[in-house]
Amino acid sequence: MSSPLGVSFIDGAEVRASGPAFHAVDPTTGEQLEPAYAECGAAEVVQATAAAAAAFEVYRRTTPETRARFLEAVADAIDAIGPDLLATVPAETGLPEARVKGETGRTSGQLRMFAADLREGGWLDVRIDPGDPARSPAPRPDVRQRSVPVGPVAVFGASNFPLAFSVAGGDTASALAAGCPVVVKAHPSHPATSELVGRAIVETLAAHDLPAGTFALLHGAGNELGEALVTDPRIAAVGFTGSRGGGLALSRLAAGREVPIPVYAEMSAVNPVFLLPGALGERAEQVATGFAGSLTGSGGQLCTKPGLVFALDGDATDTFLEAAARAVAAVPTTALLNPGIGEAFVSGVRRLGDAEGVERVAEGDTAEQGPAVPGRPALFTTTGDRFLADADLAAEVFGPAGLVVQVRDEDQLHQIVAGLEGQLTASLHVGAADTDLALDLLGRLELVAGRVLFDGWPTGVEVNHAMVHGGPFPATTAPGTTSVGARAIERFLRPVAYQDVPAALLPPELHDDNPWRVFRRIDGRADTPTQETS
Amino acid sequence: MSSPLGVSFIDGAEVRASGPAFHAVDPTTGEQLEPAYAECGAAEVVQATAAAAAAFEVYRRTTPETRARFLEAVADAIDAIGPDLLATVPAETGLPEARVKGETGRTSGQLRMFAADLREGGWLDVRIDPGDPARSPAPRPDVRQRSVPVGPVAVFGASNFPLAFSVAGGDTASALAAGCPVVVKAHPSHPATSELVGRAIVETLAAHDLPAGTFALLHGAGNELGEALVTDPRIAAVGFTGSRGGGLALSRLAAGREVPIPVYAEMSAVNPVFLLPGALGERAEQVATGFAGSLTGSGGQLCTKPGLVFALDGDATDTFLEAAARAVAAVPTTALLNPGIGEAFVSGVRRLGDAEGVERVAEGDTAEQGPAVPGRPALFTTTGDRFLADADLAAEVFGPAGLVVQVRDEDQLHQIVAGLEGQLTASLHVGAADTDLALDLLGRLELVAGRVLFDGWPTGVEVNHAMVHGGPFPATTAPGTTSVGARAIERFLRPVAYQDVPAALLPPELHDDNPWRVFRRIDGRADTPTQETS
Repeated sequence: MSSPLGVSFIDGAEVRASGPAFHAVDPTTGEQLEPAYAECGAAEVVQATAAAAAAFEVYRRTTPETRARFLEAVADAIDAIGPDLLATVPAETGLPEARVKGETGRTSGQLRMFAADLREGGWLDVRIDPGDPARSPAPRPDVRQRSVPVGPVAVFGASNFPLAFSVAGGDTASALAAGCPVVVKAHPSHPATSELVGRAIVETLAAHDLPAGTFALLHGAGNELGEALVTDPRIAAVGFTGSRGGGLALSRLAAGREVPIPVYAEMSAVNPVFLLPGALGERAEQVATGFAGSLTGSGGQLCTKPGLVFALDGDATDTFLEAAARAVAAVPTTALLNPGIGEAFVSGVRRLGDAEGVERVAEGDTAEQGPAVPGRPALFTTTGDRFLADADLAAEVFGPAGLVVQVRDEDQLHQIVAGLEGQLTASLHVGAADTDLALDLLGRLELVAGRVLFDGWPTGVEVNHAMVHGGPFPATTAPGTTSVGARAIERFLRPVAYQDVPAALLPPELHDDNPWRVFRRIDGRADTPTQETS
Repeated sequence: MSSPLGVSFIDGAEVRASGPAFHAVDPTTGEQLEPAYAECGAAEVVQATAAAAAAFEVYRRTTPETRARFLEAVADAIDAIGPDLLATVPAETGLPEARVKGETGRTSGQLRMFAADLREGGWLDVRIDPGDPARSPAPRPDVRQRSVPVGPVAVFGASNFPLAFSVAGGDTASALAAGCPVVVKAHPSHPATSELVGRAIVETLAAHDLPAGTFALLHGAGNELGEALVTDPRIAAVGFTGSRGGGLALSRLAAGREVPIPVYAEMSAVNPVFLLPGALGERAEQVATGFAGSLTGSGGQLCTKPGLVFALDGDATDTFLEAAARAVAAVPTTALLNPGIGEAFVSGVRRLGDAEGVERVAEGDTAEQGPAVPGRPALFTTTGDRFLADADLAAEVFGPAGLVVQVRDEDQLHQIVAGLEGQLTASLHVGAADTDLALDLLGRLELVAGRVLFDGWPTGVEVNHAMVHGGPFPATTAPGTTSVGARAIERFLRPVAYQDVPAALLPPELHDDNPWRVFRRIDGRADTPTQETS
């Protein structure tokens, strides 16, 4: 077992910055955790980005196969430190062992998915329009397109996914796959976890003889580090998962640069759920149990937590609400991720409870000796009229709290849908009699959310090729992209056209004979290489 | 022949706005042209965007085949008004008939390209990851992804492409192909051209029984109209081709909205050309003639005009410069597009001529009775030292003027390349002895420009599947995109994932049996439908 030492990593070296020290806090016990971490500042940012810019010149020219093997080795290294992570992550986050095991597997799994995709090559978006010297009145040029990496990427670790959206999470994996060096700002609430994973990446880079500057990990608890990183001229793009305030602040900084850069911020959502009458008529209790599980799992601290439920007034909705209240009341209070999130949760629950026309229908089970940062589940209800009258009721409460809105009729439901902000997800529970209403809502919700799902819960985001973890503002700052799944790589690529470039100078993937056997489009038509025979 | 009436089009109706009147000016004669056009304002914007939002609900649900036929009919209609355009465009722009004919063909051609692509369906980006109810520990959900249109798009007509980047130009064609209604702000220097093309679209919409609100054309000469359009909450994205100042102003407005939207602005470039020693040794005269033609064609008013040339000091470069000076001196003064561009050109040429260490080596031929808005070709030269010392020398001069930089050695060349801003294009002229230097420069320039071309000139942008007309800031505000070619459609689409949606409710392109026979990815692997048998 390797122990965290309290270091950052820059250009392959352990770095103890000279800034003020900070400690993580165990949200279960309230204890300050060791080791201390020193705050990185402008000097460390310059060192890390200069190393990243130098590494970019080498790393961007590595073959997809080289990067695939590197990502697979990082995945193996993360799996190998599973026991260390089990000893570290729960203390820093309050998350249970089962969740840590699952998230470790997701993290290594998504690294392996990008490795496989690197080999398939569709991400290169190769397009070849062959020339025609005989075309009249002017010869047709030979034009070939591929994608190139944008440059060093800054990644902000998220508090709520200490592995899958942090140091070696989806943003890092997709940027490294694209050929971009990564400078990570570790989330200050899990620095030791970040160090363990960062060390795995640093050691794997060295073992694969790749430039050490390809990866850096910087610790910091204040805003200065992030600001210095986003405004550094060597940084070409930013990946962020966190609060709306944080994402918007980084976006403003990035837009104000001499050369503006994109910030891919996944910020916030309430993930509305629509319980249609047929579904509740058929299985109100079952839906209620599923809802309570999704609402309170991981302490309700998931980007896709279903925070808002809409159901039409009626007996079946009453049955659902009673069952949901019972289920939520039976969920024990768990530790939230850190004291800041704990305070925001308490204030969010108070805001809901104090709102006009909002009734609290359940509070979670609380033991005598609760966690130091308690997340006590809470369920509220209100009417469609009140919901429409009070825009604050649609705001996210991060943690295990939700609001069930009892809607008067379908007209009011449509009015509510028309006023929804952009969302990561929207869910429908549908019975046999609900087809018409479901089809109508599907057609509306596909304009509101990045993912629409039926008869399930939005938490538990599958990492695959079709997933979209994104959505219209304010769910994200870049609705055309996803931060989970294969297409996440596209955020860190840019198309380049090569016109009449001599064959000897073309990059391999643009050669006529397709040596990497990647998927291509010839004159716009798909051209899938046959399997290589051995 | 139909005559322009001086009208805007909103929701299918001719509209005479109540704002102040303005007239286009014939830049050849200086005459004010008829008819007058009334400035549209906030009232017309609200009418047009409300109609567009209503039309979106219908238009976005049309099949790709329906939109393909519509785009083909618009292409036919534009070809059919060719004689009207020949009577109108030259007077409003000073552009010669041959250019108008060529641009008409390009405009209808790109509409037809999008029609063909709509049928092929790769743009839908369909990805299917089939579910597996038996997966342990949790069932694997069925996830299917497609692209949906973002909503009504505002398009700003460009002054320098009265057809191909204006009312029915690339932005409009790609947005309409994507399923987005379009509200065009016509460029005030060619309102009658805009009206003719706008009428062709309006009439084609009606003939195809598509919602009239799918297209609107608004006239205006001031900034208010554009500001109202970009800040209208119903507008979901903006396409713009024009000046850096204009693009940045629109971007700021869009970023400051309650819901920010993307501005796809193609703004400016000097399109550096690198003349390598071998090429000049082999064919200095030929290169010089080609350069003069590309520099001064269309009055030098193309986004891809090669405004900066770099060549290493030496005899061959002297030969090139002398030949280029002769060739430029032989080019007659032509009319520039409008008085504003004429004034900016005069001031840009004066700035270059007055700059320290810059020498004017040629002025174009000028007749006694020149055009009212004269664009007199001009060629300047300077040293690599001066170029590095004076950042203003790298700024675009819109019009037929260029600067040849005589570079001391390869080290200085690399220093210059490292300091280049983002560009639409970079060109290399290469001889047999230049391979190493060319490969090195190619590797650097692919990070600087959206298109790198060999032994040719950047003007004359091929419209095809592999073209990139884009590039790093400040060439564009969205380096991951292109405004010419098939991938332009991606700017107006957004991915959506459908999870466990019952087959009966899925959109057709996500059905297992692929009724539209579109290209798809199944579990990440390309799946090209076989040709349909009849």
